[in-house]
Amino acid sequence: LIFVAHEAGNLNDFRAILGNDVAVTAFREGELPFPDGTIITRLAWSYVASEENNKVFGRSQSFVAGPAMDVQFLVKDSKKYAATGGWGFAQFKDGKPADESVHKTCFPCHEHVKARDFVFTHYAP
Amino acid sequence: LIFVAHEAGNLNDFRAILGNDVAVTAFREGELPFPDGTIITRLAWSYVASEENNKVFGRSQSFVAGPAMDVQFLVKDSKKYAATGGWGFAQFKDGKPADESVHKTCFPCHEHVKARDFVFTHYAP
Repeated sequence: LIFVAHEAGNLNDFRAILGNDVAVTAFREGELPFPDGTIITRLAWSYVASEENNKVFGRSQSFVAGPAMDVQFLVKDSKKYAATGGWGFAQFKDGKPADESVHKTCFPCHEHVKARDFVFTHYAP
Repeated sequence: LIFVAHEAGNLNDFRAILGNDVAVTAFREGELPFPDGTIITRLAWSYVASEENNKVFGRSQSFVAGPAMDVQFLVKDSKKYAATGGWGFAQFKDGKPADESVHKTCFPCHEHVKARDFVFTHYAP
């Protein structure tokens, strides 16, 4: 586990970021760009209030992970994915890959954080 | 990883819940009470807005994990911890255990969810 986050607005999710050993080592050591072989995984669930917990505490207190949304992968291969900063993008929902039109929407957003090798996530020890 | 959540109010944290194999199996199968040997770990970080990401999106969008707060454990031993529903409670900060006065505050709150074997967390697959 590298990280957890909440994206508000139209995403409105909880997300957990996982990495393979290459990713975790690079995050820990602040290595940029990430080396080839880096795999970063993003799990997301819908972001919902826990009415059950809020009843216990008598106030708006708990926000929990609802149904799973989708799973995304970032795979670093500086040759294969040279056109998109060395990153391959993939998204799966219920075990099925999203189609190419979805994957084309990934890079335009990640491009904004070129200075961080196109990765939004910071490591949270 | 079993779960992620946000606690608002005075806690104002991001939390990730981890479990050993006994815990994960029990969560998955909805087994109540949890069997002896269950260990559930709660990691928490402060909950902060990512000004960096918000600048990219031009709106209040991202909430991320700030500095680590503390780590808590729930350990099930129905004989050893019979007085507190079979659960032993522990909290560590910077590798050091909290003192007994802190640990005495755990059960009074968990007692509210006796029907769930004193565990707030639901499994998020």
